[in-house]
Formats: sequence, structure tokens, C-alpha cells
Amino acid sequence: MQFHLNGFEPGDPDVSAPAERFPVSGAAGSVPEEVDVLIVGCGPAGLTLAAQLSAFPDIRTAIVEQKPDRLYRGQADGIACRTMEMFEAFGFSERVLRESYWVNETTFWKPDAANPDHIARSGRVQDVEDGLSEMPHVILNQARVHDFYLDVMRKSPARMQPYYGRRLTDLRIAEDEVSHPVTVMLERTGTSHEGKVETVRARYVVGCDGARSSVRRSIGLTLEGDSANQAWGVMDVLAVTDFPDIRLKSVIQSSAGGSMIIIPREGGYLVRIYVEMDKLAEGERVANRSLTSDDLIAAARRVLSPYTLEVKEIAWWSVYEIGQRLSGRFDNAGEGGTIPNVFIAGDACHTHSPKAGQGMNVSMQDTFNLGWKLAAVLRGQATPELLRTYSAERQAIAKELIDFDREWAKMLSISKKSGFDPAETERYFVRHGRYTAGTATQYRPSLLTGKGAYQELAKGFTVGTRFHSAPVIRLGDAKPVHLGHVARADGRWRLIAFADAGDPMVTGSRIGALCDFLGADASSPVTRYLRTGEDIDAIVDVRVVFQQAHRDLAFERMPAFLKPRKGRYGLIDYEKMFCADRRPGHDIFDLRGIDRSKGGIVLLRPDQYVADIFPLDAYGALSAYFERFMSRAD
Amino acid sequence: MQFHLNGFEPGDPDVSAPAERFPVSGAAGSVPEEVDVLIVGCGPAGLTLAAQLSAFPDIRTAIVEQKPDRLYRGQADGIACRTMEMFEAFGFSERVLRESYWVNETTFWKPDAANPDHIARSGRVQDVEDGLSEMPHVILNQARVHDFYLDVMRKSPARMQPYYGRRLTDLRIAEDEVSHPVTVMLERTGTSHEGKVETVRARYVVGCDGARSSVRRSIGLTLEGDSANQAWGVMDVLAVTDFPDIRLKSVIQSSAGGSMIIIPREGGYLVRIYVEMDKLAEGERVANRSLTSDDLIAAARRVLSPYTLEVKEIAWWSVYEIGQRLSGRFDNAGEGGTIPNVFIAGDACHTHSPKAGQGMNVSMQDTFNLGWKLAAVLRGQATPELLRTYSAERQAIAKELIDFDREWAKMLSISKKSGFDPAETERYFVRHGRYTAGTATQYRPSLLTGKGAYQELAKGFTVGTRFHSAPVIRLGDAKPVHLGHVARADGRWRLIAFADAGDPMVTGSRIGALCDFLGADASSPVTRYLRTGEDIDAIVDVRVVFQQAHRDLAFERMPAFLKPRKGRYGLIDYEKMFCADRRPGHDIFDLRGIDRSKGGIVLLRPDQYVADIFPLDAYGALSAYFERFMSRAD
Repeated sequence: MQFHLNGFEPGDPDVSAPAERFPVSGAAGSVPEEVDVLIVGCGPAGLTLAAQLSAFPDIRTAIVEQKPDRLYRGQADGIACRTMEMFEAFGFSERVLRESYWVNETTFWKPDAANPDHIARSGRVQDVEDGLSEMPHVILNQARVHDFYLDVMRKSPARMQPYYGRRLTDLRIAEDEVSHPVTVMLERTGTSHEGKVETVRARYVVGCDGARSSVRRSIGLTLEGDSANQAWGVMDVLAVTDFPDIRLKSVIQSSAGGSMIIIPREGGYLVRIYVEMDKLAEGERVANRSLTSDDLIAAARRVLSPYTLEVKEIAWWSVYEIGQRLSGRFDNAGEGGTIPNVFIAGDACHTHSPKAGQGMNVSMQDTFNLGWKLAAVLRGQATPELLRTYSAERQAIAKELIDFDREWAKMLSISKKSGFDPAETERYFVRHGRYTAGTATQYRPSLLTGKGAYQELAKGFTVGTRFHSAPVIRLGDAKPVHLGHVARADGRWRLIAFADAGDPMVTGSRIGALCDFLGADASSPVTRYLRTGEDIDAIVDVRVVFQQAHRDLAFERMPAFLKPRKGRYGLIDYEKMFCADRRPGHDIFDLRGIDRSKGGIVLLRPDQYVADIFPLDAYGALSAYFERFMSRAD
Repeated sequence: MQFHLNGFEPGDPDVSAPAERFPVSGAAGSVPEEVDVLIVGCGPAGLTLAAQLSAFPDIRTAIVEQKPDRLYRGQADGIACRTMEMFEAFGFSERVLRESYWVNETTFWKPDAANPDHIARSGRVQDVEDGLSEMPHVILNQARVHDFYLDVMRKSPARMQPYYGRRLTDLRIAEDEVSHPVTVMLERTGTSHEGKVETVRARYVVGCDGARSSVRRSIGLTLEGDSANQAWGVMDVLAVTDFPDIRLKSVIQSSAGGSMIIIPREGGYLVRIYVEMDKLAEGERVANRSLTSDDLIAAARRVLSPYTLEVKEIAWWSVYEIGQRLSGRFDNAGEGGTIPNVFIAGDACHTHSPKAGQGMNVSMQDTFNLGWKLAAVLRGQATPELLRTYSAERQAIAKELIDFDREWAKMLSISKKSGFDPAETERYFVRHGRYTAGTATQYRPSLLTGKGAYQELAKGFTVGTRFHSAPVIRLGDAKPVHLGHVARADGRWRLIAFADAGDPMVTGSRIGALCDFLGADASSPVTRYLRTGEDIDAIVDVRVVFQQAHRDLAFERMPAFLKPRKGRYGLIDYEKMFCADRRPGHDIFDLRGIDRSKGGIVLLRPDQYVADIFPLDAYGALSAYFERFMSRAD
């Protein structure tokens, strides 16, 4: 898609008239006085959580935002492969794929050896290694990501819309209040209601309110970290240049002008430029420097020499100082093991240099981690202890990221005098591809994550990492699909059984025996936690992948458990069984190193992470896993 | 996507609340008294034309429909590969791909030799041959196709919405009226305006008003054809069955119960069933038989024996007689070569048996053929003679289809006594795969279609057929894309130059010379028809595909013509150049048999059909082609 040719216009580029590019914005009326979950902040973290919770009409959620309206431009734009996989689960990956810029290759530029005042291309690499994800690394205005989430929320069973123009002024926790212990005061900021105060009582409050989080402050947490004392400028521009790589992600180191990063943007014309600006004094804030957009353009021109840069329009610009900061924990749980009821996520608990393209992605993964846990506890499916895993899991990941980010930012800021080595940057970039793709995240063994005792049954599905999708053929309709895409953002667990090599259609097959256990045994995790009237797959959605070609299996002879009857009519669900795509290079058993003689069970959490791997007949271990934190229907 | 589990609900399945699945429906107010184009009928033909014309705000179009509101259920559902390619040009292929059922394989069933009262599977074939199109054959409720077009229209520069509840009562042509010669009387049928008459004067009227077209009657044309005197039933059901292929397209011939076709539908549960019903007397209409949905279910059960069929809900059903009928021409042009100003399209000029899944597809291709021609003439880019090609091209295609359709329908209706051979049906089905995919359409040599004198330069792009897309790498940003997807539904021509093997970066290259001609020569079709202020690619959009790997070409050294400056800022368009994807099996030069030593020009009409093929230096022939029917800017 090409757009923005005659100027940047925010909103849906499919809509011709700029004024009509946005649906109605924001909920009318007052914030409800009592909610299950209050989300503070409408950034990527807040909206991911709101979209997740909007799937559950039995949970009362409100999301509030200090700003008077939706975001229109600027801020983050990098969308990692892992984030695209999550967008697929929310149902809007196709829209992002269609509209975004795809990062296919990254080029590196350094001072020309013959003429150090000029830059010269020093390298060119593929951005994402082959096979790392079925999704590309893409770039899209953060505001459009918001739009897609708002669309999910608006269309959802809970029909959620944000309450804009609400500033959090107070958050108190009543220890003796069992049902809705957190009380929040919100001051309205819109012109017609200015100064009006709303009081909201909530079971849980999640602060997604940015680096200066009021929620974080109210629970006594702080961001700790350091600053590189280096100002950077960022601008989204429509420009004419003879720099040949303007439509490729480019990392540029000049001899005199410092560093610069070019991130091409959606629509074919817009480009984001990060450019190194002034060195700051110890503790100095960049605001002191009164930098203008003209300063940014001048700096970019210095770096790009001998290439020209003629900026025609600036859609958005900002200046910032590099700093990596982190909160020690992401909730208000006490040392003694109390259950938290206030959480922080995204920039409220970790901030990064924007140039590694990580901030927005990690923020969304924070609340994708938290959302299903809150839903499971609120819906009575899990015990509140589950909520303690959020801070434990996500704080460790944020710390890893900050370490990576700090190293990366330093590398880019080292002046040429101290021996900057572009080749080293390039090697570092390649080595950390999995990090920037968001696929390196691995949760440590815990209540939720197994120790991987049976990892060898499915070597390619590392316990604690996200499920790495691969192609399969759906048995019922012979459709080639991506197995990972069965995992929707619906709060359900996925039990994916990879069959052994035996014939599943004969009595006594191992898959048949597993189905018997899962369908009928009193200790089956599939049935044990179900409530009256719920479909068999409401809590744990079982899918089986066979080694046989799909034409070699007879649907009518497969176990009845894999053809479940659902809904008010008892219709048959035909999408539980899959076969390996046996074309060379497509067989999931080969691609993911699955033990063909033994098969194995890969258990996925609702956020698509591999909880653990089990032998096909490890019924007891499977039941025990869920018994750790699940609640039986009463 | 899975939906309809608890009952069929029309509209956007992403919207949770059924009542909110439709945006506001229909334009308010009166139909304008004077328009450029009046489209009568809001079916697939009318909406394709409206969506095409809605891209041009300088053309005043109105679309009217007799029914009081949009379509909600039933009617056609088959979407051929070729139609998906067109949907891509309109910008909504991703939505259809996501929501539709994909026809991957078709199975064939016949009486069991051992027990002829039972059916048994006799064959199973891949539905679409590999490589026929980058798009699959899919199935989706016609109403959703309407929705997507309505969405395009609503968001378009012309912001078009249908006027519902208008019945055409009169159409007259004033031969002496130069500007708006066609006068149409519309009677309103909605409750609040019932009986009110609107008079509309139009330059052109297009009748997309179905088999009983008032527009067709008003210009004195009739449908001629025959009937097989065979009643069929069709129903969209939610059902429980032990028939194992219920999620595969299945063609079933029973010994006692006649024929049946199963078409699985979107959402994973819904299925369409076509079932052979009563033999009709000569000239008898099916309405005489007073068939009920229970009759259809009973007939389906007889065919399916020994399998059971328990229908839980009928979303839609109908009965019809097989008949193929065709109009002798599709416009009101006189024998003496006058220019037509009334056209008919879709069912108004050809009707088919629905089971071949062709009717909706051919109807949409009718108006995709007509739309750009009307736009070109109305915008002064082409002479009115161009409009004569519509009937000539589409009537011949409709006739071919009807011949195919008649043969196919007969084959399915032959009773077992007369020696029905399921194996022959299967062979016929495979042989005609290209027909049903919509890719077999080939226009004959004419004003628009060349004789293919240089066909050998690009053997895989047959002159007169639709452009068969293949993968390429975009030079500017290294993105793997489908070359065919550059052809948007925007009324523009595409001149795709496949470069010879030489270095395009050196002075005197053949591509460089072509660019010089196209950019600067007075006879260049690219510049000759442009109006003041239009971008260089407003009429003919030039793209070049190189044989070299994309890393072996330097963007900065490529011809300036391929880096055009556009829009109010003179921004550079970086999407004009492509390179072969040199991975095995992906090189477009190999895939499409392009002469590597000579290269060649493939010229595409705005509806994506190959107009002709030219040598890279055939400047005169290229200019002459356009001079036949294009108008110079004044």
C-alpha cells in the first residue's frame, strides 16, 4: 500500500477522507463505580490488556487515559515477529501485514576510508533469520496499533471503549476489604467536565501509565537505572534524498556527525530518523537544550554527507535522552507472599532506548502475560497465587532486555575516536536477532513453567519459550494452516499432542488412550475444571498432530474425543486434528525435532508460551501440573 | 476462524453482538437528478462496478436497488481464484482469505459396488492445480462479498452508498440529447416514500438487475437458452452427520436418490447442500411443485445413505430449475456501429446452473471489464469506441461458460440407468479446473487485445488472458512481493518491462533507452495523455523487473525515470523496480518463460488482462497501440 504521498494523515489509509478515518472515540458517561479490573493508561500495554479482557463479558473492566483523546501520530513503531504472532491471536495480523513496512534487510554505513567526511555502505544483512517466525518484522505507527486494539475492544463481547481525560489523583488499598480492595480517584480533564472527580473501586488495578506512572508511585515502587547522558532526536518525515538506502533500515555511523538510524515507515514515503544530538552533562535533562526540529534536520544532514536530505514535512518529532530504568518488581505483593492486587506494566516498570525497537513490544507482552491470569482468577478457574507469577516472569525478562538495550545503545554512541567498529556492531546485530524479534524470551521454571524433563520429545519447542509455529494440514478439510494460529487470545490452554508413529485408528493406540483419559477420567484437566454448560474445550483445547499424510487417515475412524460436539446444537468441531505437511522442508516433526517413535504433549499457556512437555501417557503429571493452580468448578 | 456454532448470524463475524454487525445501510435522500453513470442493481456485478467507479470522485455515479435493504444471507458463495485476484486489487483479499472456507480438495462418491443403496468414495482430487494462481478457491456468503464492496465504496473518494428501495419503471433514450441521453424513472418502495417517483438523467446506465432485468427488457434484449427440466434444491444448514467428507467439497451420485453436491462454508460448521429434486415437465416452472425445506432434507438423506444427516438449523434455502440462458449482446449499440449508452451485466445477460460456482464470479468480471472503460471515457482519456469492446468481449466469454456449464449440469443429472460414469465426471472436473478457477478467460484479438505477435518473449503471459502473478523482490526495500499485486483497481494501465540480461546501470542499456523513450519522447504513451498536474504514472504505471539479484543492483545508478518524483512534494516513488527472486522455483523469468536475452514488455489493461507483448524497443508499436483508442489531453 502506498499512502502519505501528499502529506502525513493519521488514521486508516483505506479511508479516503482524512476527517473520517477515525470511528467515534472514547466511552460516554462516567467510569463505573465498581469494576473487576481498572486499567490506567491507553498505550500498547493498557490496550493489549483491555483487548484481552474484552473477550470476557463476565469480567467488568474499565480502561482510563489521561489524554483527552486517542493517539494520532508519533511514539513507537517497531513491531517484532513475536508481537505479530500475538496480533494473529487477536485477529488483526492481516491488517498489520498489509499496511506496515516490512523490515527485510538492514544496511550498515561507516565513514568512507578514502574520505572520512563521507559515509559509505559497510554491510547489508537479512533482518530476520530464516524460519525464526512465520511472521515478519514490521514497522507501523503506534497509533495504528492502538486503532486495531480499539477495534477488537469495540467489537468484543464486553464492548469496551476507553474513558479519556481521566487523571489518577489517588490510589488506596483497603487491606480489610475482601471484594474490591483498591480505591482510585480520577480527576476529569476534558473541558466540559474539568475537575470533576470519579471514585472507582476495583478488585485489581493495572498501571500502564508510562514512565511517570502514578500507579507505580502510589504503591511505592521506583524506576532505577542510569542514563548515557546523550540526547537523541527522532522525527517522522516526508523527504527527498539521494541516500540510496532510505527504504531500508540503515544504521549509520559518521565521522563528524555522530550516529543515525533510518527506519522506513508504512505507505512507501514516510521515514523515521533517529539522530544523535548533544552530549548532556551528568544528570542534565534534554529539555534544557531547547532543541528544535531544524536542529534535528541539520544533524541528520551532517551524518548523511555527501548525501542530501530535503525535508518536505515533519509528521512528528521529539528529543529524548537515552536511559534504561527498571522497577524491582511489577506489583504490590508483600515479601510475605501476599497476593498482589495492583500491577504495573510497560514503561511504568521499564524504559529503554527506543532505537532497539523493543519498548512497545515488551510492554504488550507484559500485559499479554498478565491478562489471561487476571481472567482465570476472576472467572474462578485459577487460584490467586497465579497472579504472583506476573512480576516474577516479566521483571526478569525486562532486566534481560535492559541489559541488551544498554549494550546496544552504548555501542551506537561510542565516538569514532574511541575506536568504534562498525563490523562489531553488525555482528552484534546479527547475534541479537532473536532478541529483537522477541523470540528469545524464556521463562524460568516456576509454578507455571516446567523444568523440561521431557524436552527431548520435542526439541524445537523449548519449555518456557513461545510456541514456534509450523505448517500442518488440517485433517477435516485438508487446509494447509499454521499450527500456532489455533492459539487465539481467548484465555484457553492448548494441549497439543504430537502422535507417535502408530496407527491412531486402531483400538489401543496411544493417542486413543490419551483421548480416553482426557475425555473421561475424573482427573482429566480437560473436564475437571469445566462448569455446567461449558463446551469440552472451554478450558483446555486439545489438538492432535499426526505423522501420517492426511489422505491416509480416515476421519470417521478417529477417536470420538477429537470430533467433539459443541454449542446449543451439539455440532461437530472438525478442527481438532492435523497432519504433518509431508512436502520436503514442511514436516513439523522434522522442523521441530519431535520424537517420531514416542510422540509427546506440548502444553501451551493462554499466552502461547510452552508450559511443559509430557510423554503421551504421562496422565498423572499432566493432571498434577494443572492442580498446582487451577480451581475446580463448584 | 470458527463461527455460527450456535446458529447462523449474518454480518461481520468479528463483531460479537449480532445487532451491530452491519454499518448504516444505504444512502439518505433522493437519487441525484443527473449522474454520469446509473447502476441498477446491488448484486455482485453492480457492486463491483460501483466500487470501481467510486475511485474517481470526478465521476458522478449512483447505484440503486429494488430491495429495501442489503443482502443478509443465501445466494452465491463460490469465489474463484481469479476473483480473489481481483479482490486483491480492490484491497480486501486478506479479509476474504481470513473469513472464508478454502476449497482444498474435492471428493467424489458413487454407489457402492457391493451395496448400491449405499454410497462409497470413488475419488479425491486437489481442487486447484499447483501454481495456477497465487490465490486459493474459496467459499463465502455472497452477502459478505457485498459487505466488502460496500466498505470500499463508503471509504472511497466518491463516498458512495446504494439507494435502496428503488424499482425501475421506465428507461428511455433521447437520441438527440448529447450530454445525458438516458432517462430513467424509479419508483420508491420503502414504507415512508412508497410510490414516490424519481427521474434520473444519465450519460450511461448499467443494468445489473438480475435475470428478470428491467434494463435488458427496456433495450429490447432477451435471454435465449434452454432448460434441463430438472429441479434442484439448495440449502445452507447447520447439521450433524457421520458423512466423513462434510468439510470437503463433495460430488455425490447415489443409485436411488440422484445427485448432490456438498460445499462446506465459512466458520467451520455451516454447509451448503445442492440436491437433485423432481424432474419437471417441458416448460414447467419449479414453483409448481411447492417443495419445502423438509423435502430438500429428505432428498439429501436419501442420497447420503447409509450416512445420517440431522439438520439443526436452516440458514437459507431455495429451489430452482437448471437453465442456461444468454443475451445476444450486452449493450444497446446499433448494428451500424453506434456507441452504446446502456449496458447489461451479470445475470441480466447470462444465467447458469449455480453448482459450477460460476455465476457470481463471471458477473463480477463483467463489470470489472466495463468499469475502467466507462471511467476512461468519462474522464476524457479514451474515445467512446472503447465502450463497444465490453459486449464483444464479455458476451463471447459468457457463451463459453454456458457451454461448459450445460455440459457439467447434464453430466450430474444423468441417471444411473443411462450409464453415468463417476470416473468421467472426475476427469472432466480436473480438466476444467482452469475454467472453474476463472483463469481460462481469453479475449480475442480486437481493438484492445493484440494478436500476440511477440508472445514468445513471455510465453507464460498469454495475450488476452489475465496477468498470472509471480513472486519478485522489490528493489527499493528488498521486500518479497507478488508482481501482480501492483495492479490495483484504479483504472491505470501497467507497462511491465522485463529487462534483458544486460547491466541496466550502464549508459545505452536497453532498459535505459526504453526509459528515455517513455519519459521524454513526444509519442510516449506514458506522457502523451497526461493532464497538467497529473503524476507521471497517472495513466500508464511503468514497472521494470530485472534478472539480477536485488543486491547486485545499485538503486542510485538506475534510470531516473524509474525513480519518479510525485505528489505535491515531489517525493520519490521507490516501488517501480523489482528483481527476480532467485531462489529455486521462484524466478519469474523461469516461471513465466521470459526470453532472458531479449526481455520484453507485457502491457496490462486496467482490469489486469494482458493487452499485448512488445519487444523492449518497439516504441512505435507501443505508441500505436494506445493511439487506437486513447484521447490526448487538450
